[in-house]
Amino acid sequence: MIEGRKIPAATISRLPIYLRELGDINREGEHVVSSRLLAERTGLTSEQIRKDLAYFGAFGTRGIGYDVRHLDLAIRRILGLTAEVPVAVVGAGHLGTALIRHLQRRESGLFVAAVFDSDPQKQGQRTGGQVVLAAEMISEVVRKAGITLAAIAVPSPSAHETLRRLAEGGVGAILNFSPVKLEHPRVVVKNLDLSTELQALAYYGPGAGGERAG
Amino acid sequence: MIEGRKIPAATISRLPIYLRELGDINREGEHVVSSRLLAERTGLTSEQIRKDLAYFGAFGTRGIGYDVRHLDLAIRRILGLTAEVPVAVVGAGHLGTALIRHLQRRESGLFVAAVFDSDPQKQGQRTGGQVVLAAEMISEVVRKAGITLAAIAVPSPSAHETLRRLAEGGVGAILNFSPVKLEHPRVVVKNLDLSTELQALAYYGPGAGGERAG
Repeated sequence: MIEGRKIPAATISRLPIYLRELGDINREGEHVVSSRLLAERTGLTSEQIRKDLAYFGAFGTRGIGYDVRHLDLAIRRILGLTAEVPVAVVGAGHLGTALIRHLQRRESGLFVAAVFDSDPQKQGQRTGGQVVLAAEMISEVVRKAGITLAAIAVPSPSAHETLRRLAEGGVGAILNFSPVKLEHPRVVVKNLDLSTELQALAYYGPGAGGERAG
Repeated sequence: MIEGRKIPAATISRLPIYLRELGDINREGEHVVSSRLLAERTGLTSEQIRKDLAYFGAFGTRGIGYDVRHLDLAIRRILGLTAEVPVAVVGAGHLGTALIRHLQRRESGLFVAAVFDSDPQKQGQRTGGQVVLAAEMISEVVRKAGITLAAIAVPSPSAHETLRRLAEGGVGAILNFSPVKLEHPRVVVKNLDLSTELQALAYYGPGAGGERAG
């Protein structure tokens, strides 16, 4: 159902947000949801939601809404999350460990399949049930295990080398937490710099709406 | 310069990205930058960049570009980052600790002014040079210290209580890493769920462009 239509990255990035709400709505016992309610719960507009979901065909019934479980499954299919997706985490420091535990606790459709670190003292130790492997093994392990999704939680000096190794192993998408902005012709990289997120919020801190003395 | 014009949240969220590039460009020894070059480096369009920066007045000279240090300072003024901004971090686990160290390493204009945790075993310990305080003290400490920006890195069951305490202490903006979606009438909350970010990337993993068997 995807071939032939280019889906905007912004739409893809909103699909997990819909997935989270649909999971909550399903647990609340509701079987049908309107785009208006989805809009209220996500803070998006219902026009945006209808437009996003229209990329995948008409799932909703006008005046009634979307079948919650049908829509949940359709979004999981689109994202490739119908079977559990293996993730490689590079960097077994505080951030890497936080990410591993986070993924273990959530019903995200993702599981941590391999953990790597360049620190020999961490190698062979267990982090969240996974034995930490040497960073030199990244390409070989991810290729053999068929891992195509990874997170980089290493210090800046190791970031480029880590990207190279993951790309060589066939990884096609990376969430990069290192402050270094990474780019690669064959890999979709989302750079998520924690300072950047907080800097933008600094605008709103002194008072909602961002009123401050100029 | 801000009063009287409502600046879209999307524009505000891009300002730290410009700030990061301007810092790099300045270190590379360049004094002027065109919107075209900024576009190349950020992956945004030059139209978008010109539109964003126009909210703050005309800093650029047509055909020449923007003065790098002037623009850097102007953006810091807008975000309120000309003096170091104090941040409260709630949760001294792996994620909180990673965030504290991250902020210490970066020239972000932010510094960690207080760390809180509800675990008595962590209270009184030092995390990144800060003594961990009891979660019960949040409202009082942030109010007395004039802290208006905070990060929540606590497990889901404590998230709502933490939000309430921060809001009571006068915090106006929060970066929330807990999987619970938080909302508050007087606080701007950015919910940053690590699983959500990875779920969206799962789409691209199997091959750049997201081609996969439907």
